[in-house]
Amino acid sequence: MSKKKRKGAGRGKIPQPYCDRIARVRAEMARKRLDGYLVLDRMDQIWLTGFTGEDGGVLVTPKTVVLLTDGRFDEAAGIEAPYARKVLRKKRTPDVNVREFKRHKVTRLGFDPGHMTVADFAQYRRFAKPIKLVSLGGLILQMRNAKDDGEVEAIRRAIRVAERAFQKLQKWIRPGVTEREVAAKLEYEMARLGSQGPSFPTIVAAGPNASLPHYEPGDRKASKNEGILIDWGARVGWYCSDLTRMIWPGSIPRRLAKVYDIVREAHDRAIGAVKPGVTAEAVDRVARRCIAKAGYGPRFNHALGHGMGLDVHEAPRVGKGTKDVLKPGTVITIEPGVYLPGVGGVRLEDDVLVTETGCEVLSSLPL
Amino acid sequence: MSKKKRKGAGRGKIPQPYCDRIARVRAEMARKRLDGYLVLDRMDQIWLTGFTGEDGGVLVTPKTVVLLTDGRFDEAAGIEAPYARKVLRKKRTPDVNVREFKRHKVTRLGFDPGHMTVADFAQYRRFAKPIKLVSLGGLILQMRNAKDDGEVEAIRRAIRVAERAFQKLQKWIRPGVTEREVAAKLEYEMARLGSQGPSFPTIVAAGPNASLPHYEPGDRKASKNEGILIDWGARVGWYCSDLTRMIWPGSIPRRLAKVYDIVREAHDRAIGAVKPGVTAEAVDRVARRCIAKAGYGPRFNHALGHGMGLDVHEAPRVGKGTKDVLKPGTVITIEPGVYLPGVGGVRLEDDVLVTETGCEVLSSLPL
Repeated sequence: MSKKKRKGAGRGKIPQPYCDRIARVRAEMARKRLDGYLVLDRMDQIWLTGFTGEDGGVLVTPKTVVLLTDGRFDEAAGIEAPYARKVLRKKRTPDVNVREFKRHKVTRLGFDPGHMTVADFAQYRRFAKPIKLVSLGGLILQMRNAKDDGEVEAIRRAIRVAERAFQKLQKWIRPGVTEREVAAKLEYEMARLGSQGPSFPTIVAAGPNASLPHYEPGDRKASKNEGILIDWGARVGWYCSDLTRMIWPGSIPRRLAKVYDIVREAHDRAIGAVKPGVTAEAVDRVARRCIAKAGYGPRFNHALGHGMGLDVHEAPRVGKGTKDVLKPGTVITIEPGVYLPGVGGVRLEDDVLVTETGCEVLSSLPL
Repeated sequence: MSKKKRKGAGRGKIPQPYCDRIARVRAEMARKRLDGYLVLDRMDQIWLTGFTGEDGGVLVTPKTVVLLTDGRFDEAAGIEAPYARKVLRKKRTPDVNVREFKRHKVTRLGFDPGHMTVADFAQYRRFAKPIKLVSLGGLILQMRNAKDDGEVEAIRRAIRVAERAFQKLQKWIRPGVTEREVAAKLEYEMARLGSQGPSFPTIVAAGPNASLPHYEPGDRKASKNEGILIDWGARVGWYCSDLTRMIWPGSIPRRLAKVYDIVREAHDRAIGAVKPGVTAEAVDRVARRCIAKAGYGPRFNHALGHGMGLDVHEAPRVGKGTKDVLKPGTVITIEPGVYLPGVGGVRLEDDVLVTETGCEVLSSLPL
């Protein structure tokens, strides 16, 4: 091989778990008679190849894995996925990627229509001729649904970091601190414990603010007479955690105490219903009926939960109208809530692994 | 008006600056003979309406502004954009949005192909018949390019928060702290000062790690013999800042001292070239030539900068091959760098406002 050819070419065997994952994608490609598959989503890319670079893509062919990246991630690509061929593009536009498809003699290219914009598609269609573009939705996302042991371990670490940081927060918090300070402290402790960052913007909502399910922390101060809703998560080794707990700096206002018991029961019952073979919708229904029976049905105005992994929200949907069936290895959140505008709200959230026989609650903070 | 009709309907006048912005979008709609425009990007939505909800969209018609949101953002929608009509969808799928298009008798609907996936487009096309979907790329992004005074003020605040946090960090940092601790401390101080969160994942890269332009903070410790590259930003009132500085806990290694001077000169010269009417590419070229002349051309392997506003990376591109011309009100980053694999790297970054006559450097940390 000439020196020029070796440059950027992959070397060495593909390590696990990437070797198996790439084989699974290639098997699907063969089934669909594709000689190329283009990965555009960053989390799909990390799952498939181990390469964490941004703004790039991966071309999988029956023989090769090509990282479509740029100079910023040159060294990282060599460290994270030395087995892959890397292409350092000066521009991150479809026409540049198409050159690689043609170089690898791709004739039928699969892609995920959920991760390509209409604008890029128009360009691919223009430049890629005569390559046939084949829409194949959620191919890798579906594979990511059931986590392997290494992934579950990563999620456990992300949960542990989030929980330890919360325990530090519980010791530190006192009336008078603002929601913003609470969020900052929690994220700081997570980062010190090894979080790459919050897995989503931390929610800290005191008193009546807790009735806005996606409230952004502001200047309201913790007080003895109000609850504080905290919804937070860490990202560790790219995997997410996502938890919600209430903190009561003083006593629990009577009205919210009642709501708390209802939400807790919905939470416990929903977790009791998680097992392989049931639909995610059925689990949602268990919690929803429980809250409706107590007279708060319209006050639970969001889905019960969602799948969680490399993305904090990923398949399956856990709410009304979803057809997804739970299977072993899937990790979902269970997060019922009741919100009383002007008064406050209660939400409780844990992360649950579907096992062969039922489920395991991965998180362990007391309710 | 019946009670049913009033529910969810907008009330009150549209406040500034949203009133003007919506008028500008409506003027464009009229020019393209559109009776509907669908906003799908969250930052576009915040810019246009003030409504910060996630996972939603906005339908603009000649008479109405409709927030397509869900129960989680019900209260927020009423507070942030009371003038708009809100629709609380149970599902966030195209078919549900299409019902609103039809309810408002839309016949020609504009959308940004850069913010719609191929998967969603297929569904819109299926359900929206006979509504004609008209691709109109970057309509709002282009309007966002030139910032008004309120936006520049928000960016100044985001810069101030980032700078003050950095000054606290400079006093705190000492040999032995890890990159991860440095990033955590910096983000904590930003949050306490009012940042909603880092505007992008903070980069803290010690010693040779600084040669990876997008390094993620790890366990390497600050030492007297190495530089630390820090690239960070705050988000305040949804607007971003983005800065890079070097910290030298001890003396500057001789090889990097030379590189530092080169990068600094490229940085200063590039800023000197920023004025309305020049292309962003010309500014990039000034820095690139400066570094190439010193013999480090191939070691500056990324674009000189990028536009910054609600998104930390937005129009214009500031690099090779861009046709964008700088105009008053545009805010860009200037961030030349030189990276020596195995040794380290130097990058210096400031945020610059294009003015009527030249530019104003909005950031003010000493180099």
